Amino acid sequence: MRALLIVSHGSRRQQSNDEVNEVCANLKEYLEGDFDVIHSAFLEIASPSIPEGIKQCIDEGSSSVTVLPYFLAAGRHVAEDIPSIVDAARKEFPEVSFSITQHIGAFEGMPRLISNVAKGSDARGI
Amino acid sequence: MRALLIVSHGSRRQQSNDEVNEVCANLKEYLEGDFDVIHSAFLEIASPSIPEGIKQCIDEGSSSVTVLPYFLAAGRHVAEDIPSIVDAARKEFPEVSFSITQHIGAFEGMPRLISNVAKGSDARGI
Repeated sequence: MRALLIVSHGSRRQQSNDEVNEVCANLKEYLEGDFDVIHSAFLEIASPSIPEGIKQCIDEGSSSVTVLPYFLAAGRHVAEDIPSIVDAARKEFPEVSFSITQHIGAFEGMPRLISNVAKGSDARGI
Repeated sequence: MRALLIVSHGSRRQQSNDEVNEVCANLKEYLEGDFDVIHSAFLEIASPSIPEGIKQCIDEGSSSVTVLPYFLAAGRHVAEDIPSIVDAARKEFPEVSFSITQHIGAFEGMPRLISNVAKGSDARGI
């Protein structure tokens, strides 16, 4: 079983965390066949934490966990904190395969996405 | 003249701020005809600040400024801080028309974007 763990920063505003959870819930239809389990986790403030999210994926039977940093820029959190937490998980669960994707802001489709938001063309769903 | 101001959080890591500036620079080809001026500004830590970015747009002749919150979730920064700064600019420059778009994370195309990153299909540029 393959798991995808969407990792975001976490906010004191629960509405903000719920928003990320909702985006993750909407991922299922796009990832059927690629990932069996999709969860979200938070680096700070909100729960589940990243180690908790990883454990949940493994408890549900995942033998691989792909961590996707849901961050727009590669600040310290993306460059250091998340890799460090994943490295610790690698040591704790040597039988599980871990990988980290690029952060969402590095996606080459991002300028087009921004331009669609700027032009108010969200309804197109591009 | 119409200006688009991409507002992100700002990081102590200059590489992270440069990354946002680069994404903004890549916007020009998508927004020709919609916006004459495109700049980026930072809520905290980095410069230019949002008021500085707004002033730059106006100094260059813009009569309308569209502010795009480059944030993934509507935390306090999106819900309160940015609107408050834009309201202050409205009072300072009553002859200029201001608007704020949805934040980037609210874009309905986001789940598909995330799924493409997760599947490693960045090269498609979707």
